[in-house]
This record gives sequence, C-alpha cells and structure tokens, in this order.
Amino acid sequence: MTSAEDAGAPEPAPRRRRPQVAELVADARTGDPRAVARLISLVEDEAPEVREVAERLSPHAGAAQVIGLTGAPGVGKSTSLSALVGAFRQMGRRVGVLAVDPSSPFSGGALLGDRVRMQDHATDGGVYIRSMASRGHLGGLAWSTPQAVRVLDAAGCDVVIVETVGVGQSEVAIAGLADTTVVMLAPGMGDGIQAAKAGILEIGDVYVVNKADRDGAHQVVRELRSMLSLGQREHGWRPPIVETVASVGTGVDDLVAAIDKHQAMLSEAGELAGKRRRRARDEIEAIAVTALRERFADFHGSADLDGLAESVVSGDLDPYSAADRLVAAL
Amino acid sequence: MTSAEDAGAPEPAPRRRRPQVAELVADARTGDPRAVARLISLVEDEAPEVREVAERLSPHAGAAQVIGLTGAPGVGKSTSLSALVGAFRQMGRRVGVLAVDPSSPFSGGALLGDRVRMQDHATDGGVYIRSMASRGHLGGLAWSTPQAVRVLDAAGCDVVIVETVGVGQSEVAIAGLADTTVVMLAPGMGDGIQAAKAGILEIGDVYVVNKADRDGAHQVVRELRSMLSLGQREHGWRPPIVETVASVGTGVDDLVAAIDKHQAMLSEAGELAGKRRRRARDEIEAIAVTALRERFADFHGSADLDGLAESVVSGDLDPYSAADRLVAAL
Repeated sequence: MTSAEDAGAPEPAPRRRRPQVAELVADARTGDPRAVARLISLVEDEAPEVREVAERLSPHAGAAQVIGLTGAPGVGKSTSLSALVGAFRQMGRRVGVLAVDPSSPFSGGALLGDRVRMQDHATDGGVYIRSMASRGHLGGLAWSTPQAVRVLDAAGCDVVIVETVGVGQSEVAIAGLADTTVVMLAPGMGDGIQAAKAGILEIGDVYVVNKADRDGAHQVVRELRSMLSLGQREHGWRPPIVETVASVGTGVDDLVAAIDKHQAMLSEAGELAGKRRRRARDEIEAIAVTALRERFADFHGSADLDGLAESVVSGDLDPYSAADRLVAAL
Repeated sequence: MTSAEDAGAPEPAPRRRRPQVAELVADARTGDPRAVARLISLVEDEAPEVREVAERLSPHAGAAQVIGLTGAPGVGKSTSLSALVGAFRQMGRRVGVLAVDPSSPFSGGALLGDRVRMQDHATDGGVYIRSMASRGHLGGLAWSTPQAVRVLDAAGCDVVIVETVGVGQSEVAIAGLADTTVVMLAPGMGDGIQAAKAGILEIGDVYVVNKADRDGAHQVVRELRSMLSLGQREHGWRPPIVETVASVGTGVDDLVAAIDKHQAMLSEAGELAGKRRRRARDEIEAIAVTALRERFADFHGSADLDGLAESVVSGDLDPYSAADRLVAAL
C-alpha cells in the first residue's frame, strides 16, 4: 500500500460508469491503495454499491486492532498520530488511519493540518491515511466510519487508528468504535481542559498528556489522576496516564505499550468479542435507521413529512402524534 | 420566573408518584420556575409523560426567538452568554437559556463553569437558566433539546438561547434548531481556530470574535472575513463579524443588534417559517427514530439484535443484510 490523501479529490471514472466491486475488493485485499481509496470513497459517498462492498468485505474483516484517538483541538493530535504510526511501523505492523472530521459536515474536505503533518509517512507502503468528512447529514459518520474501518481491516491493516477532532458526541461515537480509546490532553488549553474533562473521564482507556515539557503539564496529570481515581472500570483496568512530547517522540513507545496492554487485557477478559459485538450492533442499527429515514422522506398524504411539520409549527399537532403517523405509515 | 440551576438534582416527589402534567403546564405558563424545571426534567429524563407534555405545550409555543450560541471551549462562551442575557433583560425581554453539553453524555451533570458565571442572573425573575446533558444515548440531545426549547417558549420566554460547547456535530444540530446561530471565535486558540473554521463557515448567521482586545484578534477577524467572503447566503445575508470583549461588556449591544437584524431579515423573507418547519421536521424524525430503536431492542428470533451482531462479527452476515432483517421485523 502507498499512503494517499484523496478525500477531497473524486475518483476519475474512465470508461466504466460504475466500479466493479468484486474487482476492487480483490485488489484492496492485495494492498492496492487505489482500490482501498475507491472503496472508502464509495462508503463515504453512500454510493449504491455500499451494500455489495459490505457483503464482499465482511468475510475478510475482523482481524485489525482498532484504536480511537480523540481530544480537543490544539492538544497535538496530528503530531501524536504521526509519531504513533511511526512506532507501529517500526514494529512491522501495517497501519490504516482514518482522520474523521465531524467539524466539517458541509465541505467534505480533509483537515489540511493532518495532510501536512502526516507527510512523513507519505512514501511508506505499509501506511494508508485517509480523511473522512460527514457530508452534511447527521449520523453520516456513525454510518460510514465503521464501514471504512472494515475496508482497511479487510485490506490487511494490522492496526486501524480512527482520529476524531473535538469535544462532543464524536468522542462517544469513537469509544463505541474502537477496541482502545486514547484520550489526549495538553496543558495551556484553558477552559478546554475543563470542558473536555467532563466528557472524557468515562471513555478513555488510555490517557495522554501531550506537551509534557510545558508549564502546567504536571498539574494536568495530577488533576486527571485524581478525577480518574474516582471511577470504576471493568476487569479492574486502571487507565494509565502517559506523558508525551510527541513533537520529539518522547513517550510514544510508552503509549504504544499502554495501548497493547489494554488490548491484551480485553482479549484475556473475553471483552474484545463483547466490544466488537456492540460495535456490530451499533452499525446494524445505524444502517437500519438510515433506511427508515429514507422511507420517511418518501411518504405522502397523511404521513407527508412536510405537511406534518407544518401542523406542528402551527400548533395543530404535537410532534409525538406526528411521529406516530410516520411510524404507522411504515 | 426565578433563575434555577437544577439539572443535577432530581425533583422531590412528595405524596404523588407521577407529576400532573396539566397542572405543571398551567403553572409553567404563569412563569412558575419550579414547574418549568419539572417539565424540562421530564423531557430530559425521557419520562413517560413527555408525550403529554408535548401535547399540552404545543398550542402555546412558537413565539420565542431561538438563538444558538456555539464555539470551541475557551472562546468565552459563558461570559458572552451572561452579557447577552443582561442585554436582553435591559430591553425587557424574558430569556431562557439552555446550556447543552454534549461532551457530558454519561454524567448527566451541568458544566460548573456556566453555573458560576451565570450567577449574575440568579436572582432575576425574567431569566431561566438550565443545563442539559445527553444522558448517554446518542441522539438524546437531538431529541430532548427542541422539547426543552418548547417548554421555555410556552412558559413565556421571548428569547431562548441554546448554548453548545465544542466543535462537531453539535454545531450542526444547533444550526438546525435556532433561528439565528451565533458562532464564537477568539484569538490564541492555536489549532482550535484552524479546526473550528472548517466546520463553522456555513452555519453561522452572526460571527463573534471575542477577546477582541488580545493579540491576534485582528488577524482572526481578517481571516474570517476573507473566508466568509467566498460563501453565498440566502436572501443576500452577509454574516456580520462582531468584535466583543464580553468580560467588560464591549460589543455586546452590537451583537444583540446583529442578531435582531438577522431575525428581521428572516421574517421579511418568509424564511422564519421555513426554518421552523425544518425544525419541526427534524424533531418529528428524531422522535420516530427513537421509537423505532426501542422496537429494535425488543425483537427476538431472527431479528434479535444481539444474534445479528454476533453473525456480523463472525463474518457470516454483512451489516446490511442484518439491518434488512431488523427493518423487515417492523
């Protein structure tokens, strides 16, 4: 595989109008980066072929270790991601990266920052890097991200890292998707850390305090430790706090060790299977809900969504009764 | 009404086990803050009474101006919110505030910061302040926030401000919910601004650069202006950029003026009704999807969700075929 950043550029379609999914899947399984890119584009674009893509990939997926990496903007996620990829590569593992950007629902574009920083790995055939945006429809990433993970998994990635920006429901989503969720903090974020803490204390399996050489880093570690000490985790897991200076590589090996230790714990406790089952469950639900929403939009007459909305605005109908009509029309 | 922050504390239920919704709605409409609190708690807790709450409130709602306020952590949202509330109060408008915290899905708690900063308004009978958390289920806020807005609207708030933290899908959700979406930035956020910009350029009706007295503020304004100049808005609206120093009140009147100007434009263009119709549509859909999800969980046999998930994990079934079985079982 060769690294490619192609989220923004549509695939050219010379001659044939529709891709041959069987062929793409076969090519992706040999590690062909263009085939991987094409499959992820199909998934991201919600193309009609997504169904066949999932059918053909399913038997070949399930081996990859899935790592979630999240944290507020400014903590140094991209730099850490790059360092982490380097460390995994040194261990001979093939790495897929999905940089999921829920903050960019309309543009469909990739984060420029990632592109620049990840260029260290641009010529490494064992790394596949891809940015994904949500294409504007809420729940779009919940639907497409697990499918993109499946593409990378079936294409032979030993490790798939899913990176999300920001504080918010994206973090919850990533925690559902990953075997191990890494939550990053950094000193000097002001309210950022304060706000971030509220949401992250339950989702991190491993915590990273990056920029550990800066003023305030010890304070962040101390606060985090004290807050984490209050919670209980399954199977006695105590989320470690790893201090890193990702820009110079300090602590990155410790981070890899902590991730692998968590994975080993999950595996021994039989919890890896449980996590994956929950992940599949969420994915099935997301697909079913998407299908149902599409049907909603097609209804006419008394279940016409615009007409129902009009009645709710005017106060003639409450939204529950309106929803009842929609559900009944199924 | 009296300001109250009661998101964390469950309402005591002396004698009667279930609240009398009719009575609560009647009390809320006279401005009784305890009744308002109680109704929002019912909505937030997804209590069985939510249906009756919506039915009884619907005829009385629809008059409030709904303002969304969003921005990354650290831009000074809470301070600005407090200043904005003060400005609206000086104009004699009754204000409801919903501080929606999607970063806190598990704790169900409120942001301490908001509580502290909003205490300026704690004794003002014309202000109702409430924090909401998502109670852990994805889509929970999409479902409960519009209903909480309806409570405040029916209770006589002239203005309802919905504040969300962070970068991400929450911003998109708020843009759908509000008549006018105010997006805040501040200098010195580092990657924060970079990351934030990608997602916010389409959703803001009014932009605020807070901490305008700090180094780099002009740079932020300049960049923002240049990025905004590329986009097209409906009805020729050009989103203004308001510079504020919310901590000392500078620019807050300009912000109020910009918000009201946007509202007036919407109203003149007939777009206010359109926005509200779309909002109702989203709400109906969210309720319907929630109802359908609940049904999914009850299926057994070939549509048993756990069994389907197991088959997907083992590669025996792809998630689309699994979702088909779920949909078919409806």
